[in-house]
Amino acid sequence: MASNGSTTVGHPITCKAAIVWGPSEPLVIQEVRVDPPKRLEVRMKVLYTSICHTDLSAWKGENELQRAYPRILGHEAAGVVESVGEGVEDLKPGDHVVPIFTGECGSCTYCKSDKTNLCNDFRVNPFKSTMVRDGKTRFSAVGPTGGEPVPVYHFLNTSTFSEYTVLDSACVVRINPSAPLERMCLLSCGISTGVGAAWNTANVTEGSTVAIFGLGAVGLAVAEGSRLRGASKIIGVDINPEKFIKGKEMGITDFINPKEHKAVNEVIKEMTNGGVDYSFECAGNVDVLREAFVSTHDGWGRTIVLGIHPTPRMLPLHPMELFDGRHITGCVFGDFKGKSQLPDIVDKCIKGEIKINFDGFITHELPFEEINQAFQLLEEGKSLRCLLTL
Amino acid sequence: MASNGSTTVGHPITCKAAIVWGPSEPLVIQEVRVDPPKRLEVRMKVLYTSICHTDLSAWKGENELQRAYPRILGHEAAGVVESVGEGVEDLKPGDHVVPIFTGECGSCTYCKSDKTNLCNDFRVNPFKSTMVRDGKTRFSAVGPTGGEPVPVYHFLNTSTFSEYTVLDSACVVRINPSAPLERMCLLSCGISTGVGAAWNTANVTEGSTVAIFGLGAVGLAVAEGSRLRGASKIIGVDINPEKFIKGKEMGITDFINPKEHKAVNEVIKEMTNGGVDYSFECAGNVDVLREAFVSTHDGWGRTIVLGIHPTPRMLPLHPMELFDGRHITGCVFGDFKGKSQLPDIVDKCIKGEIKINFDGFITHELPFEEINQAFQLLEEGKSLRCLLTL
Repeated sequence: MASNGSTTVGHPITCKAAIVWGPSEPLVIQEVRVDPPKRLEVRMKVLYTSICHTDLSAWKGENELQRAYPRILGHEAAGVVESVGEGVEDLKPGDHVVPIFTGECGSCTYCKSDKTNLCNDFRVNPFKSTMVRDGKTRFSAVGPTGGEPVPVYHFLNTSTFSEYTVLDSACVVRINPSAPLERMCLLSCGISTGVGAAWNTANVTEGSTVAIFGLGAVGLAVAEGSRLRGASKIIGVDINPEKFIKGKEMGITDFINPKEHKAVNEVIKEMTNGGVDYSFECAGNVDVLREAFVSTHDGWGRTIVLGIHPTPRMLPLHPMELFDGRHITGCVFGDFKGKSQLPDIVDKCIKGEIKINFDGFITHELPFEEINQAFQLLEEGKSLRCLLTL
Repeated sequence: MASNGSTTVGHPITCKAAIVWGPSEPLVIQEVRVDPPKRLEVRMKVLYTSICHTDLSAWKGENELQRAYPRILGHEAAGVVESVGEGVEDLKPGDHVVPIFTGECGSCTYCKSDKTNLCNDFRVNPFKSTMVRDGKTRFSAVGPTGGEPVPVYHFLNTSTFSEYTVLDSACVVRINPSAPLERMCLLSCGISTGVGAAWNTANVTEGSTVAIFGLGAVGLAVAEGSRLRGASKIIGVDINPEKFIKGKEMGITDFINPKEHKAVNEVIKEMTNGGVDYSFECAGNVDVLREAFVSTHDGWGRTIVLGIHPTPRMLPLHPMELFDGRHITGCVFGDFKGKSQLPDIVDKCIKGEIKINFDGFITHELPFEEINQAFQLLEEGKSLRCLLTL
């Protein structure tokens, strides 16, 4: 086992975490016991974390299968490795890291394929609530009514709403230590997902046209990725016109409020001589998804699905519509293989070769203790990302 | 206007054609008047033609919008240019040609894009029944009850069930005159569609696994394309086990009769360690389409839709299923740009660089006069392709 000489190595750590004890109940900042990492695991000191809609959804327990409480949520973060378990060779105490909810074991059929970023064991799974290798938790805490400590469930392989967390090494990406961790935090989810959707999944080309349905952080990250690729027109679609202010700052060139038009796809077709080259659905609504699909140019239009669709409704597309040459594809984590590809993105950001506007995404900053306020800001659509400092 | 010195040039030709006078009525071999080609059109002497399910469907008038009678069907053929209209520069009398129902004008946005083979004006359109440029017909004939000649409708830009036909030059491909026209005929539709689906749309790679749902001519052409690309396993799925005999001859390695299994996708997953790399739906049935989709390997599976789906039912896929990394895409004419790409395919076939088993597809040969028998053979599933000699 590696060691940095710290007295905590190999021992449980007692620290603060934000625990959800029941659906939609306020998070409780309290003591949690964090076990040392087991074989191929890493214990990470979380320095920054932020909140994404997937956290909100799990907090509310929107999907019955996701209701595992008590639980430590959180998947966007940055921090430092505290200690590593047996067999971990690519990470050591002190490394600057970001967690990834779509892990990369590096050795399964999927990781060895260049066609997918879905790892066999560590792909995103919102229903999983324990460590992958032994199906147990590394957290325990005393409940609000006292008594013996009980196991506290994990979330998305990450559980970053804690001063310390345990992750599988497949879900930990070491990055250049000169990168600012308070910004790299966003690579854990929002920015990578949106930018990668534009770069990897859609492969947006210079001069092309783009429509983004839903202007939250992921939608704006798609805009960022499209802008960096030289898209000539980036159309933002949202029913909340307040989003247009931020959208304009972030390089979106045109805006459509669906409430003001009968059919968004017709407006887009008029604006773009027949439809956009790429559309991105970041709203999680199947009617919006259909609109995004038919807003693309026939012959080559590509619709990338990023929204989470909790509906039982099926895709509202007729099989014959596929013969018009429009394509539709889902995208998880921007099709990035996290451990293989993010370090290079970070290096290029440091060198200025890639100019991602990280700052633009951080609309609020709060101490970790005010995490409930951060949840509220996101739910009310007031924040893109609220950075929490631990 | 070009001329080969023939006395027919610039004049109407009276010849034999097989005319459909009403839905499912036997085709009538009778005299038809074929007008000379107008600007940018070509009059072609049809030497060989064959029948495909799209002809069957239009013959029956399965889709109300397709019911235009009297009509000359047919779209798979080969022959020689008789004369050309004003402005035609790439074709001249005597050229060996095959018609294509998905034309290529060469100058529209679509033709100039390398992402689609759908021409703006000449893409496949089963509802079109006249010439594209003036909306009129070039055929006229006297009805079964006598009287004055009436206009006879066109079909799929081609209407090859006639000794002479008029096509737009966008729908005529000149091929190497040393290629056997009685085989090249199949490039008009079946072989190009299936082989191109494997080569262009799916891009089947060496050693990969393939499942084909529906073993008609297009399905077998997919097998042929996959075999030529070195697929390691080609699984044929059909409810008619008689198709397996021909399928085996054509290189299909494994067969599944859905009637003998609860879930085809489970059988396929067992046979292929998690699913095929590519599946092809050639059955025109949405339940089969779903089975084809879930039979592919998650992470990278690709389903190519080739079947025509007359159902009002939508795609039976849930949007969240797209996040498993399976892809679905439609394919028209094998994604070949006919005029640009087919001549090279023909040249390579002549040189033996591409070894397409054309002979294997021709199960029957009949004189043109027996076209009604050929229709019956196809409808009863007894023929793959019946070659008609004019």
